[in-house]
Amino acid sequence: MSQIETYIQEHEGQFLEDLKAWLRIPSISTQPEHAGDVQRAAEYAVEQLKHLGIEHAELIQTQGHPLVYGEWLQASGKPTLLIYGHYDVQPVDPIELWESAPFDPTIRNGNIYSRGAADDKGQVMLVFKALETLFKVNGTLPINVKVLIEGEEEAGGESIEHYVKTYPERLGCDAAFICDTHMPSTEIPALITGLRGIIYTEVVVHGAKGDLHSGTYGGVAPNPLHALSIIISRLKDADGHIHIPGLYDKLRKPSHEEKTFWEQDPLHMNEAFLHEMGVSQLSGELEYPPLERVSARPTLEVHGIVGGFTGEGAKTVIPAVAKAKISLRLPPDLKSKEVFKLFEQAVKDNAPAGVTVDVINVHGGEGVLVSPDSEVMRAASSALEEVYGKAPVHLREGGSVPIAALFDEVLRVPVVLMGFGLPDDNLHAPNEKYSLQQFFNGIRTVASFLQKMA
Amino acid sequence: MSQIETYIQEHEGQFLEDLKAWLRIPSISTQPEHAGDVQRAAEYAVEQLKHLGIEHAELIQTQGHPLVYGEWLQASGKPTLLIYGHYDVQPVDPIELWESAPFDPTIRNGNIYSRGAADDKGQVMLVFKALETLFKVNGTLPINVKVLIEGEEEAGGESIEHYVKTYPERLGCDAAFICDTHMPSTEIPALITGLRGIIYTEVVVHGAKGDLHSGTYGGVAPNPLHALSIIISRLKDADGHIHIPGLYDKLRKPSHEEKTFWEQDPLHMNEAFLHEMGVSQLSGELEYPPLERVSARPTLEVHGIVGGFTGEGAKTVIPAVAKAKISLRLPPDLKSKEVFKLFEQAVKDNAPAGVTVDVINVHGGEGVLVSPDSEVMRAASSALEEVYGKAPVHLREGGSVPIAALFDEVLRVPVVLMGFGLPDDNLHAPNEKYSLQQFFNGIRTVASFLQKMA
Repeated sequence: MSQIETYIQEHEGQFLEDLKAWLRIPSISTQPEHAGDVQRAAEYAVEQLKHLGIEHAELIQTQGHPLVYGEWLQASGKPTLLIYGHYDVQPVDPIELWESAPFDPTIRNGNIYSRGAADDKGQVMLVFKALETLFKVNGTLPINVKVLIEGEEEAGGESIEHYVKTYPERLGCDAAFICDTHMPSTEIPALITGLRGIIYTEVVVHGAKGDLHSGTYGGVAPNPLHALSIIISRLKDADGHIHIPGLYDKLRKPSHEEKTFWEQDPLHMNEAFLHEMGVSQLSGELEYPPLERVSARPTLEVHGIVGGFTGEGAKTVIPAVAKAKISLRLPPDLKSKEVFKLFEQAVKDNAPAGVTVDVINVHGGEGVLVSPDSEVMRAASSALEEVYGKAPVHLREGGSVPIAALFDEVLRVPVVLMGFGLPDDNLHAPNEKYSLQQFFNGIRTVASFLQKMA
Repeated sequence: MSQIETYIQEHEGQFLEDLKAWLRIPSISTQPEHAGDVQRAAEYAVEQLKHLGIEHAELIQTQGHPLVYGEWLQASGKPTLLIYGHYDVQPVDPIELWESAPFDPTIRNGNIYSRGAADDKGQVMLVFKALETLFKVNGTLPINVKVLIEGEEEAGGESIEHYVKTYPERLGCDAAFICDTHMPSTEIPALITGLRGIIYTEVVVHGAKGDLHSGTYGGVAPNPLHALSIIISRLKDADGHIHIPGLYDKLRKPSHEEKTFWEQDPLHMNEAFLHEMGVSQLSGELEYPPLERVSARPTLEVHGIVGGFTGEGAKTVIPAVAKAKISLRLPPDLKSKEVFKLFEQAVKDNAPAGVTVDVINVHGGEGVLVSPDSEVMRAASSALEEVYGKAPVHLREGGSVPIAALFDEVLRVPVVLMGFGLPDDNLHAPNEKYSLQQFFNGIRTVASFLQKMA
């Protein structure tokens, strides 16, 4: 048994105790009454970094919650890795659905149950413990590291965005490593090779100056709810095709390797989606494989509509205004600002006569494409293969990880998205958990990854 | 000056005092805390009927609020008129917008301001005072009358529906007279010759078994809000045409007289609608005149949509369910039950693959067409011409008056819809008012109407 493995096995109990202590701090970043807890969770991370051997570990005060920073730059001539994670967590409601208290970490069936167990304290802690293991076994690290942990990932992430844009040279590195994603299963290691960007909008349709009675005005009045339905049905048809002129023009063709992977669907996502959603058929662009549709195609979704009378019973109002929240997921190369302009134009072009329409840009973010051919990605791939016994699959995620886009855009380095969560970890939901097997395999993988980077 | 006119002028003050006393009783039928007031308002009507000479005046207890009934059947060989009105009123909120207290009737600028002034106590009281005038001047009435006043018009009207269907022979008559409508202006008397029926529905669209995240499932998930938009846009196009197979098949062609009236638009409804709605152009079926569109064409309106995330900010949910409230206004000959079946089929036929749809029949009611050529309508027309100096226009109303449909269907007699309200009476709104000039002209008209019926 290697010294690394011996150290990990001998310290399993202590590693878990350190994780539990961190999980007990209810660092909910969106709830002002927990501001003190958020601060305590940040201080705990600083103590951990100091304890394991990272230098200059400190809190960086921001307009919001503090950043945690530390570095170790004594591996002369070796590459530098920027390590990212977050110590803040989601709220716990509905609290009554938790089987054990969300901030009383409890081990059941090989999992640790707690808010933040998977998202993201468990994953940050496994990186810390990988660093500790390397330090304790070798007295040194194989590469240089900079650690940057934020406390606002669940609350908009403004402070870290401001910091990265203001001090890009302080964060200078050869690669960034984000440990905040998951694998398809304990048997299938994965590296994330793409993320979609997003534009999130609100479409507001105005008709008459006030609500009207349909008995008196039905037949001559503009109906903003009807107009909104027409606009939405024209933006995306029943077959999932988006009709926004220019949208698909800049879409890059996926690689042959990706296309083959999606078409062969070795993860059986077709069946998985049917099961998870409880439906008898999938929706969307049927001419594309499901995995491509959810991760590499642009999609348009309506998230909410509100307008008129929505209570019990009947009221024959023609409302003066109706609103919809609509977003588009954008594969890399579709830039959020450009797409917003195309979207806004398409909404206005499709509005029926008689109504006026406002299109509000709520927020936007860019997608990321990570080539699997860089040295750092090969090191990550090799580390995963060493621990899991097989090479990782290359997946794109359909959602956004804004920090990945930020590192990609500002630092211009490869962004390794390697996480050890599982699909059933209940992120943002009651009974969030993290697999202990994944926690310890994560420590092994990250330790190996750093050694292979050297 | 006729004896009738002399009596009216000499008793103006007393007539108004009797109206005010009734208006002071807050007979809000939908608010249980006012149940006692509703009862008192009914008792007041019984007293009025007894006082003026109506026989067998009494309260009829029901499952809800009492009916007021009375009759005078001594005009042997003369026709019998069933007179309808309601003594219940709408709630008063928003109370802060009233310039004088809603149950403290106040006279300003020739109007009496109070909840119920126009809808419908003022109109019922003018009928009472016409009867009183005829009794006092002639010692008798020119025709037989049955009076039936309800207390649930603003609360569904179930009790009167049950009563009429149970005792049609007790209400046997040659014509019914409903004094609960309005005229276009003090210069333009009107008789209502048509009302639209309605079906009111709720369309519920189900997608996946739970809410989904668009980053993970966008591209394969059914989106009930998108499906609902497609369904609605397919049911009615941007030009106001309804695409429900069979809907227009039974639509009766309007008379040449009506068509000419709508096309010539002597009431300038085109401009009136633009002004009232504050829009620069009218919507709907532009190939039909506005007055025809709002009163004689089938219309489909969406009254409310709700689904997904509708709070502040952004949430990327794909909701599991979305709902819309949709009604159709139905010209006479389009029967509500048949149209509901056509509607339900069209909704299901237009639903995109991947969602399931439920269509709920919330309620329905039939339209009414009143021929202006009956003797009773000629008597009403002649009475209006006598008092107002010109023949009444024949209007259809776009809304429903369920009691008219009920009398039409059960009693099978002509239904005279002659009221003296004005378009700016603020029904169901703060500062409801009734024109005193209309109140006294109403008394004159109804007295004349009964004489001409004889």
